[in-house]
Amino acid sequence: MDAPKAGSLPGILFDHARRARIGLPEAVFCEGKTREALLALLRRFPRGSGEAILFTRLAPDIFAAMPEDVRSGYDYDPVSRTAFGDRMPERAGASVAVVSAGAADAPVAREAARTLLYLGIPHTLFEDCGVAGLWRLTERLPEINAHSAVIAVAGLEGALASVLGGLTPLPVFAVPTSVGYGVARDGAAALTGMLASCAPGVAVLNIDNGYGGACAAARVVNLA
Amino acid sequence: MDAPKAGSLPGILFDHARRARIGLPEAVFCEGKTREALLALLRRFPRGSGEAILFTRLAPDIFAAMPEDVRSGYDYDPVSRTAFGDRMPERAGASVAVVSAGAADAPVAREAARTLLYLGIPHTLFEDCGVAGLWRLTERLPEINAHSAVIAVAGLEGALASVLGGLTPLPVFAVPTSVGYGVARDGAAALTGMLASCAPGVAVLNIDNGYGGACAAARVVNLA
Amino acid sequence: MDAPKAGSLPGILFDHARRARIGLPEAVFCEGKTREALLALLRRFPRGSGEAILFTRLAPDIFAAMPEDVRSGYDYDPVSRTAFGDRMPERAGASVAVVSAGAADAPVAREAARTLLYLGIPHTLFEDCGVAGLWRLTERLPEINAHSAVIAVAGLEGALASVLGGLTPLPVFAVPTSVGYGVARDGAAALTGMLASCAPGVAVLNIDNGYGGACAAARVVNLA
Amino acid sequence: MDAPKAGSLPGILFDHARRARIGLPEAVFCEGKTREALLALLRRFPRGSGEAILFTRLAPDIFAAMPEDVRSGYDYDPVSRTAFGDRMPERAGASVAVVSAGAADAPVAREAARTLLYLGIPHTLFEDCGVAGLWRLTERLPEINAHSAVIAVAGLEGALASVLGGLTPLPVFAVPTSVGYGVARDGAAALTGMLASCAPGVAVLNIDNGYGGACAAARVVNLA
Amino acid sequence: MDAPKAGSLPGILFDHARRARIGLPEAVFCEGKTREALLALLRRFPRGSGEAILFTRLAPDIFAAMPEDVRSGYDYDPVSRTAFGDRMPERAGASVAVVSAGAADAPVAREAARTLLYLGIPHTLFEDCGVAGLWRLTERLPEINAHSAVIAVAGLEGALASVLGGLTPLPVFAVPTSVGYGVARDGAAALTGMLASCAPGVAVLNIDNGYGGACAAARVVNLA
Amino acid sequence: MDAPKAGSLPGILFDHARRARIGLPEAVFCEGKTREALLALLRRFPRGSGEAILFTRLAPDIFAAMPEDVRSGYDYDPVSRTAFGDRMPERAGASVAVVSAGAADAPVAREAARTLLYLGIPHTLFEDCGVAGLWRLTERLPEINAHSAVIAVAGLEGALASVLGGLTPLPVFAVPTSVGYGVARDGAAALTGMLASCAPGVAVLNIDNGYGGACAAARVVNLA
Amino acid sequence: MDAPKAGSLPGILFDHARRARIGLPEAVFCEGKTREALLALLRRFPRGSGEAILFTRLAPDIFAAMPEDVRSGYDYDPVSRTAFGDRMPERAGASVAVVSAGAADAPVAREAARTLLYLGIPHTLFEDCGVAGLWRLTERLPEINAHSAVIAVAGLEGALASVLGGLTPLPVFAVPTSVGYGVARDGAAALTGMLASCAPGVAVLNIDNGYGGACAAARVVNLA
Amino acid sequence: MDAPKAGSLPGILFDHARRARIGLPEAVFCEGKTREALLALLRRFPRGSGEAILFTRLAPDIFAAMPEDVRSGYDYDPVSRTAFGDRMPERAGASVAVVSAGAADAPVAREAARTLLYLGIPHTLFEDCGVAGLWRLTERLPEINAHSAVIAVAGLEGALASVLGGLTPLPVFAVPTSVGYGVARDGAAALTGMLASCAPGVAVLNIDNGYGGACAAARVVNLA
Repeated sequence: MDAPKAGSLPGILFDHARRARIGLPEAVFCEGKTREALLALLRRFPRGSGEAILFTRLAPDIFAAMPEDVRSGYDYDPVSRTAFGDRMPERAGASVAVVSAGAADAPVAREAARTLLYLGIPHTLFEDCGVAGLWRLTERLPEINAHSAVIAVAGLEGALASVLGGLTPLPVFAVPTSVGYGVARDGAAALTGMLASCAPGVAVLNIDNGYGGACAAARVVNLA
Repeated sequence: MDAPKAGSLPGILFDHARRARIGLPEAVFCEGKTREALLALLRRFPRGSGEAILFTRLAPDIFAAMPEDVRSGYDYDPVSRTAFGDRMPERAGASVAVVSAGAADAPVAREAARTLLYLGIPHTLFEDCGVAGLWRLTERLPEINAHSAVIAVAGLEGALASVLGGLTPLPVFAVPTSVGYGVARDGAAALTGMLASCAPGVAVLNIDNGYGGACAAARVVNLA
Repeated sequence: MDAPKAGSLPGILFDHARRARIGLPEAVFCEGKTREALLALLRRFPRGSGEAILFTRLAPDIFAAMPEDVRSGYDYDPVSRTAFGDRMPERAGASVAVVSAGAADAPVAREAARTLLYLGIPHTLFEDCGVAGLWRLTERLPEINAHSAVIAVAGLEGALASVLGGLTPLPVFAVPTSVGYGVARDGAAALTGMLASCAPGVAVLNIDNGYGGACAAARVVNLA
Repeated sequence: MDAPKAGSLPGILFDHARRARIGLPEAVFCEGKTREALLALLRRFPRGSGEAILFTRLAPDIFAAMPEDVRSGYDYDPVSRTAFGDRMPERAGASVAVVSAGAADAPVAREAARTLLYLGIPHTLFEDCGVAGLWRLTERLPEINAHSAVIAVAGLEGALASVLGGLTPLPVFAVPTSVGYGVARDGAAALTGMLASCAPGVAVLNIDNGYGGACAAARVVNLA
Repeated sequence: MDAPKAGSLPGILFDHARRARIGLPEAVFCEGKTREALLALLRRFPRGSGEAILFTRLAPDIFAAMPEDVRSGYDYDPVSRTAFGDRMPERAGASVAVVSAGAADAPVAREAARTLLYLGIPHTLFEDCGVAGLWRLTERLPEINAHSAVIAVAGLEGALASVLGGLTPLPVFAVPTSVGYGVARDGAAALTGMLASCAPGVAVLNIDNGYGGACAAARVVNLA
Repeated sequence: MDAPKAGSLPGILFDHARRARIGLPEAVFCEGKTREALLALLRRFPRGSGEAILFTRLAPDIFAAMPEDVRSGYDYDPVSRTAFGDRMPERAGASVAVVSAGAADAPVAREAARTLLYLGIPHTLFEDCGVAGLWRLTERLPEINAHSAVIAVAGLEGALASVLGGLTPLPVFAVPTSVGYGVARDGAAALTGMLASCAPGVAVLNIDNGYGGACAAARVVNLA
Repeated sequence: MDAPKAGSLPGILFDHARRARIGLPEAVFCEGKTREALLALLRRFPRGSGEAILFTRLAPDIFAAMPEDVRSGYDYDPVSRTAFGDRMPERAGASVAVVSAGAADAPVAREAARTLLYLGIPHTLFEDCGVAGLWRLTERLPEINAHSAVIAVAGLEGALASVLGGLTPLPVFAVPTSVGYGVARDGAAALTGMLASCAPGVAVLNIDNGYGGACAAARVVNLA
Repeated sequence: MDAPKAGSLPGILFDHARRARIGLPEAVFCEGKTREALLALLRRFPRGSGEAILFTRLAPDIFAAMPEDVRSGYDYDPVSRTAFGDRMPERAGASVAVVSAGAADAPVAREAARTLLYLGIPHTLFEDCGVAGLWRLTERLPEINAHSAVIAVAGLEGALASVLGGLTPLPVFAVPTSVGYGVARDGAAALTGMLASCAPGVAVLNIDNGYGGACAAARVVNLA
């Protein structure tokens, strides 16, 4: 009988073939991992390691508590809570618009933007375009439509996805956020609102899944 | 021991003082009542009875099966499923706009309109203004804003309430409808979307409660 | 005061500009509409009318009860419950794979396929690829990967989306179906399973929304 | 490719036209914003800045940690967690009654009252009127009815809204609170109870949305 | 291997000792049982059989379709959908008040009353006491308080339980009903409202469980 | 472009290798399949066809409407709604106890029993052992414990699983049923109660999944 | 316009007439009240103040942080988190059994016991009687049955209520607790299990509402 | 009247007969117990005490704060949060495979493994076999199939259970974990996905219940 040694780190089998298989490398979701496990992983993939790995949901206080030599090997952004050492080669061509409803959606919108940065995909961030002031969206519509896919990030009732879906011919990937309280708490209202959208062909990701929105858009961009 | 006689009609205590107390007469919600109970009530309040009582959720097949002499005492509308014999005196002045997102919302939007008609309150019905085609709403905005209150009726994600709430200074009473399927089934997505609206001061009624939307607007109109 | 005449049809404002704006024409969702309303609409857009309109959720018994001269103007499929008179011009190029988990998912998978047919977009239907027998999916993977987007249709726990998302680089649009009972009733388990997928970038549509899956894929195909 | 600089503040587009459009200025919802973002905003709109902006959900410990010179520019109330520098001109005329069920509802009731104060709208606060002791409400009814709208704030089962709705002819805006535990936790019981009210025309805001209740009442008062 | 013969009736083990053990005889819940199973049971316990068994949720059309000789052995009430042949001996002393909010609650209120009748417990039925017209309850309060326990039956938001619980010293057994639509559909709002009641010591039964309310009251009366 | 011919039957890929792979042959879930699809399947696997296929959820009225020559090829049980032509060879040895709480659980308990019969696994059915009369379970405990696995079938609160789990050392597979109303409607209370059981090691199947309970027990029996 | 002074304590209207009206004095629910508000209340009702007020949900760390002279005026129990200065006169006669399933239910069971102590009602506490070991309950049944009412306190699936309800003729007030995780988290499984109990006449209180269970039992005891 | 002394420890009745009755000894669930109660229990069952008791959900910081002499009597693992002094005798023969989807599932997978270790049951741990990279599971399948039962541990959508259930003939006990966010938060998506599995006979435990998964497998192993 050989149970794991008490306190040993969980076994991890990196799916290095994933990039070849689906065009997207494996990422490390940091929430819920112990400091020890994260440190071991961060030591493994710094800048220059030759393997481009994205760390998501890496909280600022946890990253700040890592040794200086580990931190210095990473490009870290505290708003999106993302880090990477190496990143994938930048490419020209098809680009992605990330549109968010309000300032409170920034962590998710920027997780999407940072993931695109890491994947080497050109993109533009359009923040604070919520529909309570329609002009904020309609004024920027021509610029948004110049991209190849849109990631629409919104909390509360998530109406941005419906309005945008009715105005743009691009693929729309809607990311509900956990911004709000009461019935909007934890993103439930935005999620159901986006799934029930009256605009045709709006596709939806999990709540706060900016990373997923970027991967969905990358699948489109990768087609080209 | 005196249990009710088997099969006897439920006792009803009409709250005739309600109109004096809150400005709104008692109404009869017909769903779930037996044909016998409805017949007894319809015989009691026909045109000319001197008491203006509104019947809501009175299904077309049930009304059609009532005796001809009973039916002839009522103004019945099958879309809204409402009936009344007498109605309250028409008044001039403050009026109400009823705005709906799609054709499928007609039963609820028209329940609101018919309730206003019964209450003697001037009103206009704006149908099929859903936000997937924004121009349908914005083109009619000046006409809508000429009223004193708006009832916004929508199913699916209910984004009409947010967009309208950001465009009009009037009191907005949002009525979610049970139009939709999947996460929108039974009106759940519209209800939470309207409650979570990013537009300030949008107040919400129960799902499919066109009658309640009209009563809420009537409370505003009655102030004048 | 001008309430709508009792029993009159709901006002409909067709958003004819939608196709120009977003590349997808307006469709008619038939569920919940009265026979009268449907008849009026079907009389308006038969084959040769010059306007290509798709009718979805048009139940077989309701279509069968329409006058023969109306029915003969339409291409109707009872499994998907879709009808159209004219359809949009067929185009060559980018195509879509529709993959479903089981025979019970046919109404939704075929709603997607028929919508693509109506939109003139080439597509292939892969039925009964559920993961309880993995070989049914893996054997057909090369053929699936020859398309430009995948629509993954599944009920129960919806695991097809996760497995497929881990095997294909294409954009994946997952459509949960209301196939199942108990916790899977009404598609709730498939919906949450697809949203929570461990495969990156799987985007999700509302439950049973085959039409939406096709529109989302069409937005990708329209890019080309 | 120009992703936002790592750690930069979210872009904010103030909707300064909102007041002209709907009679209600834009407000800042502070929950979830970083200290840095709040500080930047507070520095922008102090007393004398010429722009009246309301800050809601501004926690006492966060406000207390702001620099003294920033705090001194604001009128801050720790119970309602609201702050404003300038406020809108006081006006005479139509006034609002804020009625709450229990002492624990004070943060929400006072958010409503403070929002009205900020908007320049006359109002009176009636606290601890829960229906377990009916006399607490009925004794104050005449005074309540002397206003033009009522905001009814209650947690637990929220029965205050139904009882009040049956006693007053005024517009009633019901605000459920997250006071309670078990089935009442997070305000769910009060929310559904208020939406399902047996009193006609009671309109409901999101849980704990005292600000929204005040805005809804302001829309009524603004009509005059 | 001895599987039950295909189509055989389910085995039933009557718990005849229950009355001795807990003072309440076993009852037959008819919903979901086949006509064959019900017929066999009805043939077993008619008037004069010496065993007093209560049948609940016995739908009128199902009872009407039973043979005349079976029906004649039972006291059947179509409103409450209850039947019994023999009943337990009437007793003097402690009695129960059954108070309901509206006419639509009659099936549940009368199930409670009929169960008490069957158990031989004196009781009075007070119908249509909903709190939208408080006088309907307060006028009858002295008469209600002359009993030993109260069963409060209400749908919608169920506020009757809170108001009554604050006015009477008696044990209060609250029975939510599935009367209502939207958030009140299936009794969910009434159930949570009653459980969250601000009045102390209100105890709650399952939705539509008039039988259970009567049994709970019987446990109190049986103490005497 | 080759869409399926309008109205064609869904493609089915039978997973004939399943029995070799996991010891359980593929079954046909009939709910939601059209009459045409079912007829085609029933024609394919009658007694003597050499392939033992189980049909579950085959409603009595649907089976009765099949041609006589089709029906005569099947062993059909209307209570469990199951049918099979050939069945797997009976085997001696490890057997299974199916224990149910009440008569209303019969369809599910018998689906489990019939599935075991079809799989050739010895079993005994213990009906009406609900815990409101504990003696009904404890008296039969020794007989139950003489088997190798227990399937515990119960609706309402499902307490049978906890009590049985505390009394037997056997593997316990708990199957919640949709028996009940109010909070127990659709089996939700039984499901969560069984999952939250205070007895250790009670494993749970989906609501009404008697077939799954039998398959889980078969996996245990197949070990021997 | 007279808004409450910023930071002032919420107004409280004590319902001193409650005891005369319903036999139960008003209590103070401490959760969510500020330290300042609690201190003011504790200063008002210490031992010898002549008014017996119960404080519930008064957390140990909050009580410990009160001034010594305030604490010394109260009988405080940290397990149940209850405090009182004076209490109501002890009375002889009818008594209450408090039965709990496990050690983790102690805070709730003891809140019930302490409330009874405060009300002057004789009672006995039976802890750790969960049904996974039935003998723990059945052995103590005769002693339990010597009381006049039972409060059954349990978390997880709450099966204790069903088993006890089938064994005792006494009024049973079931109090679900938030003991458990997964589907039992926050008491949801226990609540629905108790409401769906197969034992007749088990009445249920809100989750963790030991105080309510005691009040419900007190209403029974007060009858004598 | 003898209420428990204020602050006394909850009474605990150990069910020492449980092991004889069902083959599984009683365990101590530590979450929610006070430090004092845990200390008393830990002092009672250290290594050499002669009674093998498992402590589950014993948080590292709580264990670390126990006196050194107490800690030294236990084998403690911080990942699984389990401790035991003595353990049950190791036995040869039937063994269990514990398969987990990702590194974040380690606490639950290892709670299962440690429980098996404590019970003396041979087992192997297969970590990081999530289906987004199918090869991680299929490569290890032969080794997994060499055991007598499988515990499948997964969060997110829990698809591992379906894929594994379609590949192995062994009894499969699926344990959903609370790994994930949005719709997967708290394990809800994994739980429903596993219950709705398209693979036959997959039985499910409560969310995060690694202990329960081990006990279920032990019931199978104990048969031998």
